[in-house]
Amino acid sequence: MIIVMRPHAAEAELDAVTTLIASLALTSHISRGAERTIVGVVGAPADKETLLAQFAGLDGVESVVPISKSFKLVSREARPERTIVRIKPGISFGGTEIAVCAGPCSVESREQLETTASAVAAAGANILRGGAFKPRTSPYAFQGLGEEGLKYLRDAADRNGLAVVTEVLDVRDVELVSKYTDILQIGARNMQNFTLLREVGGARVPALLKRGIAATIDEWLMAAEYIYVAGNHQIVLCERGIRSYDQATRNLLDLSAVPVAQGLTHLPVIVDPSHGTGIRNLVAPMSLAAVAGGADGLIIEVHPNPAAAFSDGPQSLTLPMFAELMARIAPVAEAVGRKLPEPATAAA
Amino acid sequence: MIIVMRPHAAEAELDAVTTLIASLALTSHISRGAERTIVGVVGAPADKETLLAQFAGLDGVESVVPISKSFKLVSREARPERTIVRIKPGISFGGTEIAVCAGPCSVESREQLETTASAVAAAGANILRGGAFKPRTSPYAFQGLGEEGLKYLRDAADRNGLAVVTEVLDVRDVELVSKYTDILQIGARNMQNFTLLREVGGARVPALLKRGIAATIDEWLMAAEYIYVAGNHQIVLCERGIRSYDQATRNLLDLSAVPVAQGLTHLPVIVDPSHGTGIRNLVAPMSLAAVAGGADGLIIEVHPNPAAAFSDGPQSLTLPMFAELMARIAPVAEAVGRKLPEPATAAA
Amino acid sequence: MIIVMRPHAAEAELDAVTTLIASLALTSHISRGAERTIVGVVGAPADKETLLAQFAGLDGVESVVPISKSFKLVSREARPERTIVRIKPGISFGGTEIAVCAGPCSVESREQLETTASAVAAAGANILRGGAFKPRTSPYAFQGLGEEGLKYLRDAADRNGLAVVTEVLDVRDVELVSKYTDILQIGARNMQNFTLLREVGGARVPALLKRGIAATIDEWLMAAEYIYVAGNHQIVLCERGIRSYDQATRNLLDLSAVPVAQGLTHLPVIVDPSHGTGIRNLVAPMSLAAVAGGADGLIIEVHPNPAAAFSDGPQSLTLPMFAELMARIAPVAEAVGRKLPEPATAAA
Amino acid sequence: MIIVMRPHAAEAELDAVTTLIASLALTSHISRGAERTIVGVVGAPADKETLLAQFAGLDGVESVVPISKSFKLVSREARPERTIVRIKPGISFGGTEIAVCAGPCSVESREQLETTASAVAAAGANILRGGAFKPRTSPYAFQGLGEEGLKYLRDAADRNGLAVVTEVLDVRDVELVSKYTDILQIGARNMQNFTLLREVGGARVPALLKRGIAATIDEWLMAAEYIYVAGNHQIVLCERGIRSYDQATRNLLDLSAVPVAQGLTHLPVIVDPSHGTGIRNLVAPMSLAAVAGGADGLIIEVHPNPAAAFSDGPQSLTLPMFAELMARIAPVAEAVGRKLPEPATAAA
Repeated sequence: MIIVMRPHAAEAELDAVTTLIASLALTSHISRGAERTIVGVVGAPADKETLLAQFAGLDGVESVVPISKSFKLVSREARPERTIVRIKPGISFGGTEIAVCAGPCSVESREQLETTASAVAAAGANILRGGAFKPRTSPYAFQGLGEEGLKYLRDAADRNGLAVVTEVLDVRDVELVSKYTDILQIGARNMQNFTLLREVGGARVPALLKRGIAATIDEWLMAAEYIYVAGNHQIVLCERGIRSYDQATRNLLDLSAVPVAQGLTHLPVIVDPSHGTGIRNLVAPMSLAAVAGGADGLIIEVHPNPAAAFSDGPQSLTLPMFAELMARIAPVAEAVGRKLPEPATAAA
Repeated sequence: MIIVMRPHAAEAELDAVTTLIASLALTSHISRGAERTIVGVVGAPADKETLLAQFAGLDGVESVVPISKSFKLVSREARPERTIVRIKPGISFGGTEIAVCAGPCSVESREQLETTASAVAAAGANILRGGAFKPRTSPYAFQGLGEEGLKYLRDAADRNGLAVVTEVLDVRDVELVSKYTDILQIGARNMQNFTLLREVGGARVPALLKRGIAATIDEWLMAAEYIYVAGNHQIVLCERGIRSYDQATRNLLDLSAVPVAQGLTHLPVIVDPSHGTGIRNLVAPMSLAAVAGGADGLIIEVHPNPAAAFSDGPQSLTLPMFAELMARIAPVAEAVGRKLPEPATAAA
Repeated sequence: MIIVMRPHAAEAELDAVTTLIASLALTSHISRGAERTIVGVVGAPADKETLLAQFAGLDGVESVVPISKSFKLVSREARPERTIVRIKPGISFGGTEIAVCAGPCSVESREQLETTASAVAAAGANILRGGAFKPRTSPYAFQGLGEEGLKYLRDAADRNGLAVVTEVLDVRDVELVSKYTDILQIGARNMQNFTLLREVGGARVPALLKRGIAATIDEWLMAAEYIYVAGNHQIVLCERGIRSYDQATRNLLDLSAVPVAQGLTHLPVIVDPSHGTGIRNLVAPMSLAAVAGGADGLIIEVHPNPAAAFSDGPQSLTLPMFAELMARIAPVAEAVGRKLPEPATAAA
Repeated sequence: MIIVMRPHAAEAELDAVTTLIASLALTSHISRGAERTIVGVVGAPADKETLLAQFAGLDGVESVVPISKSFKLVSREARPERTIVRIKPGISFGGTEIAVCAGPCSVESREQLETTASAVAAAGANILRGGAFKPRTSPYAFQGLGEEGLKYLRDAADRNGLAVVTEVLDVRDVELVSKYTDILQIGARNMQNFTLLREVGGARVPALLKRGIAATIDEWLMAAEYIYVAGNHQIVLCERGIRSYDQATRNLLDLSAVPVAQGLTHLPVIVDPSHGTGIRNLVAPMSLAAVAGGADGLIIEVHPNPAAAFSDGPQSLTLPMFAELMARIAPVAEAVGRKLPEPATAAA
């Protein structure tokens, strides 16, 4: 059961709710979002019907919703309308417009970022991606430029009217990364790093939660629940390929996860066809498929010179390939009643 | 290496080719297709360059192609242009038109077939699907109507201007099933039933080869090679979902298998979103995604009354759902330069 | 529900049972085994309690057992004691003794078989394995010697006091293979080749049913049910590795499948560490682990010269490696209350 | 290539090594272990032979080892003898003795810990396990007692002569947990939490690294490399089951991972049959199998009253079941040349 408080409900009203919960030997999980406070109630009450009515009668309570799933606040039952995660004016996830994040795997240099940002903006992307802190299988692989990389990202994005999405790896870096980015990405390897989920749940920057490499959809939504209950209600889910026995692709892009997840949660769901396949030539067909299948956005690796990329070269599109892909996506988006973002307006 | 003989090359010319192969301690695999004969050469020749020239100089030889893959005749190297599998006038796989097979999982009765066939034809499908011999996990489940079911299929298809695709399970039934069907389906469980592959390779009816439930793409193409080398060159590949750790769907539809396979073979590749997901509500988004991602066709389970279906009810579309889906597919097909079949003309 | 008839129950008694079943709108599946006839009853009766009593009261009925699983005749509920599959005097599966099948992947020549058979017999194996009909991923790979290979197997086994296990691929070959072998092997690729399962179910030679490469344990037992209900009650199950995302081994040997299956069925369960790992050095530790974990037998690939083997060389033990392994297995078997076979006595 | 410095090599000698590395445009990774310093050299040198000789000639260098694997310091090439991780006198991993960790999933109370510790010590375990910080799929599930739980663990272990292993989830808790535990466990979900790996690499407490739920063995060893290169050379690997398509068990215990990993690394490898199967009845057969297959230890969930456990009840052994299991393990260990620990001597 969840209890949705009215916007601007008084603290005393909230206290009355949690006091009643405690008196019933149930547990409250208070999620203070930017817009409203929601109380998750955990435990097995004796008489559910009576209970719902009892809470609905309290002051400041907007609605009381019984939830059948193990994930509660992110479930569709908790919120029938779809959540639109608004990044900045003209940039959002979950509406008619398909958000497009593009950029290199790793931030490598100021020039690389600037070249990429202006090209992807011109082609119609509205968010710049790039890693300043890189999770690498090997301790000997390039680990990212750190704060310097964050500055390059921010600058290149601002000059080209783009928002920024970048990954945070360490709970101790959430504050630092939040200063530079518009969206905090939690990578696949950290999907069940619960301390990081809670820390990002405490940030006031929207989160992009990638699906773990062998996570079930239920586990993915439970991870989102960790962020949500900690107070961050602006969460975008990202399918990025799962592990398969077939080595024909780097990962196995699970496109059916898009409609499955959309049926279970009110949060937007996007697709990463770059990690999802690991092969440049598959990025275009899988991007088109994702959009036709209902994805709320795409996140695509683009590099001015993939052969020289510090990481993920084989799956990165060149700048012209990305522009060509955007031109092919437009009619498919239209065919399913969606559209690409309006061209970004660079800061004068 | 494969040697493509000219159409109508003489037997003596073919003999000269195989004699030369034998003299080099290599092995010939002669594939006598309806249109032309192809000789696969297996073994490790010493001097490849000289050898290619030597064979190219023989009478009756059209071309000699070195092949780097373990599958040879079905590889793109063997045939740069895409194969169009022609079923009957106006019905083909692999061209601009997206073939659409629709119908029930199991053939249950003459009425069921007739109702379904006329509805799917009206909605724009051009091939009727339905199982008369059913592979069932349990020996106690409905095993199909057998030859009676084949007759119902044939009659319903003919009355509605449709072709027929149906599964053959037993090597001893290939001849029987071929009398009634336009396409012999080999199911996922039989993808590596090599004696059945060879028997279907000897039939003059095109084959639809489903991917095994845990087959790699390479193994799938090797299975197609079994059919091809046995003389049946009219093969359609069908992705139908693979095994995954996540039970959110019945199988995991691997849409990236479409462009991956199309990059490796000249054969057409279609998608089965019904088995691929096992859930009715996912059939539409995955059909749209498949078409946008480049699939050459779809095979969809449709039933007049899914709740009463003998098998696969939960994944079957109702007749109106199918008609609505076809209407949604049309603009997506157009957006990627394809189109749906022309409406079938029922036999007067 | 299953109804176990008394040994030598009269046909009229059986008729009375099936007539009652039919009158209740339920379906009979009669399994006529060598020792007794069992009737599987499928359908959903209204009042189970009354029904059980009703059948138990009929003449010739030994017992009536309600079954909660989808597999019925092979379930532990159907038969509380463990089945011992007796191959010939001194050779059985499922008792205290651990059966050991050893031999080459493919039968290659009379000499190869003779050398291997005498060595594995001397080392303590009691069954000779070897493939005369080979299921190969590629149509260009060695497909086996056919009937000639069967003769070599039989002869080598007889001369060394061993039984024979060999694979049958084609329903049309079941009779032929049965003439030469003591155990009909159904390979992993054919685990759901239902026509083959039924045909082997009609043979009077015990069956060895390998688990499919991505089969669940339930599906495996349902496949055994196909054989059992067709009348062959002498079935040995064999775990041989399943598909995994990790390419460190050829397959992933699922040793927990042994106790899981033994908890669900009364049939014996053995392990194939050769296919289960695909790597020679892993065969010994996995054989020891299998025995300690409760396996009723082992099937191991052994070749006089693995480097020259026509197939599966990398996973084959040499003759001395096999002898050394048997010496290491003996104390582990003893530690868990089992023992290796008595040394085979070669036919004089 | 790795360069092993002599014990007590001077800083100036180390400087000479790293200066030479830098002058060759290669990168040094200095791992300062408790016993010796090792320098990993990353990059592609032109003339490997000359280079090896050049480094071998420097003062303070004990040996120079070329490494063919992507993991270097943990590879068997780096250290031919097996590492024995010594926890305290009489408790170690990797020698003849099989280490046995036992205890509850979650620390729940002082009484629970005391009861369990004395029972498992009496049965022959030498390390007490228990979680004070719990990684839980749901934010609403019990998250552990925190520092209080650590105290209970330490006290109960000390009173019973046991060492302690417990999980650390958060980089900020490494110091705190290290105060109470003898072994820092990194759980499966955090196997690629690289910031945590580095932090534990900086601790002077040995590490137990669980394999990720879908990690390849290579990725697992790369994760160990992160810890090793950061200076912690006392690492124990733990196989705990991976994801499978079959829901018959909670995870799929990959016992072949034991000999595979032992062939690739010098670090000890233990097995967790409790998480590896998720089912109480499978813990015994899989423990026996693990020991027979060469595992260097076991970690087993034991609870005085599994039905009331806060977590993992279904896979926990009761105290008598654990004692019975230890009695069954002893002869299997002996059969493969290993033995169980000497009985722990409780602190007077």
